[in-house]
Amino acid sequence: MSESMYRKAGVDIDKGNQAVHKIKEMVSKMGVQEIGKFSGFFPLKKKIANPVLVSSADGVGTKLKIAFMSGIHGTVGRDLVNHCVDDILVYGADPLFFLDYIATGKVEPDTVSEIVSGILDGCVDNEFVLLGGETAEMPGFYQDNEYDVAGFIVGILNQKKMVDGKSIKAGDLLVGLPSTGLHTNGYSLARYIVFDQLKLNVDSKVDSLELTIGEELLKVHRSYLKPVKSLLAKNYVKGMAHITGGGFIDNIPRILPNGLSVQIERIWPVPPIFEFLVDAGKVSLEERFRVFNMGIGMVLMIDPKNLSKVEQTLQEQDEPFYLIGQVAEQKNTQRVLIK
Amino acid sequence: MSESMYRKAGVDIDKGNQAVHKIKEMVSKMGVQEIGKFSGFFPLKKKIANPVLVSSADGVGTKLKIAFMSGIHGTVGRDLVNHCVDDILVYGADPLFFLDYIATGKVEPDTVSEIVSGILDGCVDNEFVLLGGETAEMPGFYQDNEYDVAGFIVGILNQKKMVDGKSIKAGDLLVGLPSTGLHTNGYSLARYIVFDQLKLNVDSKVDSLELTIGEELLKVHRSYLKPVKSLLAKNYVKGMAHITGGGFIDNIPRILPNGLSVQIERIWPVPPIFEFLVDAGKVSLEERFRVFNMGIGMVLMIDPKNLSKVEQTLQEQDEPFYLIGQVAEQKNTQRVLIK
Repeated sequence: MSESMYRKAGVDIDKGNQAVHKIKEMVSKMGVQEIGKFSGFFPLKKKIANPVLVSSADGVGTKLKIAFMSGIHGTVGRDLVNHCVDDILVYGADPLFFLDYIATGKVEPDTVSEIVSGILDGCVDNEFVLLGGETAEMPGFYQDNEYDVAGFIVGILNQKKMVDGKSIKAGDLLVGLPSTGLHTNGYSLARYIVFDQLKLNVDSKVDSLELTIGEELLKVHRSYLKPVKSLLAKNYVKGMAHITGGGFIDNIPRILPNGLSVQIERIWPVPPIFEFLVDAGKVSLEERFRVFNMGIGMVLMIDPKNLSKVEQTLQEQDEPFYLIGQVAEQKNTQRVLIK
Repeated sequence: MSESMYRKAGVDIDKGNQAVHKIKEMVSKMGVQEIGKFSGFFPLKKKIANPVLVSSADGVGTKLKIAFMSGIHGTVGRDLVNHCVDDILVYGADPLFFLDYIATGKVEPDTVSEIVSGILDGCVDNEFVLLGGETAEMPGFYQDNEYDVAGFIVGILNQKKMVDGKSIKAGDLLVGLPSTGLHTNGYSLARYIVFDQLKLNVDSKVDSLELTIGEELLKVHRSYLKPVKSLLAKNYVKGMAHITGGGFIDNIPRILPNGLSVQIERIWPVPPIFEFLVDAGKVSLEERFRVFNMGIGMVLMIDPKNLSKVEQTLQEQDEPFYLIGQVAEQKNTQRVLIK
């Protein structure tokens, strides 16, 4: 593959090299001895009271099929890293390190280096390290030019500062931080609507969307690390839900104390890709909030008395946000009521 | 699937339930708050000086194909856990927790619970916890009744006690701990010899092997945690190599200081499965020690003055071992010379 073809495929060699350089710089700066041989090493130099390791494993799911169809392999690594970062961030954890697992039928160095370059970009963006990983060549497991990726993250927090949702009470407000698109969820339904029902392909353009179908569906799952950390530093956040598989309906109750429910007001601008999918697929209100994030990737529960300070903190960073609902006493069986 | 069919398939429901019960017991005993929702939590309660986290990611590779052919899914989880334990053990790390990633085209609860039961068994055997994991349903990625698994381990050690091989010098002895079989390496070659060349199947019996081909090839990758920890406690071990992909040839140099080589004497009883494979496949001496572990899964480098104490420690635990070689000045380009 020539360098210009790399660029066409969305990968910038210079940027890849820069990422490797950056990660090496970070690796030494963060006190990591070396990228391991049998294992990776992460010295816990920073003292933290009541330390709790927080860990999560994730994949990218069938969003990978969009990468295969588009021939773009440089973004799924960022999806993977950011998804993992957000999954530990909901408890207030700082990411320490990441490991990847890449499995493919036949290792194509170009493809693998595109994937790893995306993972490195994700680690650099979130200012933590790639400590190791495994690239498995498994003939007969994967179709030609296909692969699977999994990521593992380890973070740390002070147990006494864990954001566990226990102090959430009726009247607390829900602040929604916008998503960039589908993130890593709802791709089985989206693919069914777009490719099976509408017979479109990744290069198709539709009126309501600025980019091609493939570009819209490959938009990178964003990390909420920076805005959320700035709020956590001031103790403004009582609980958080990362809106992934299961949408609002399944994820918000994960952090909600018993006896409470939430009412969501649909006041935020839903990104056109969701409007397009739910219209074309005739997706019911309940289903769309269970399958998709509908434009909100992270929900924060805050005390109303902190609202103006939360607003100010987010505005100072040019972080868009929406006041999307409120916590209520649980009066019926529905814990998440979409109005 | 009936319970008796489960048993026939090598899975014992009672044992599975026991494992779940055991792991729950361990989870509470080890101070873990709860199996996480977005993540898992591991409080670092035990104080350790100069703490370094040691982490590794692994898969089971194409050994999974033997599991698919045999319909036995309860052992690959133990392979996965033990492989990971051994990969951090070589530096002297104690395992803290494990996460798994299981990906399949369509989630078959019976198969997934067999896999997870094996992972739990592995965690119980090594006395550490399964902290979480991801089970991904990815239609169109895997063939029917097939799957991939990856594991991720985090352990800890005192940096000043890290077994880094730096003190290894000419004259040090190599102690080999026996493997149970192929462990998780060499399956592409083994499958080629057994199924493509010899046209055997997993139920085939050959004269030199006690068990069927499938049973021989599914033997579980063993953990060396117990014997190695007993030697580490007495500071008898200068360096270790886990004999995985790359065999003796690639793995021993990982821990060997520059300027040194090792000479291996083939004095241990090579298990019949390896004799069978190298005879049938006409595998050269060099290749067999690069592809297979040839009956030695872990190599320890020790000071000759500690030999009798090492022997005594291992004998007290009924752990078989072989004195398989010696460290020498590097006189030629071969760093691992098989005599």
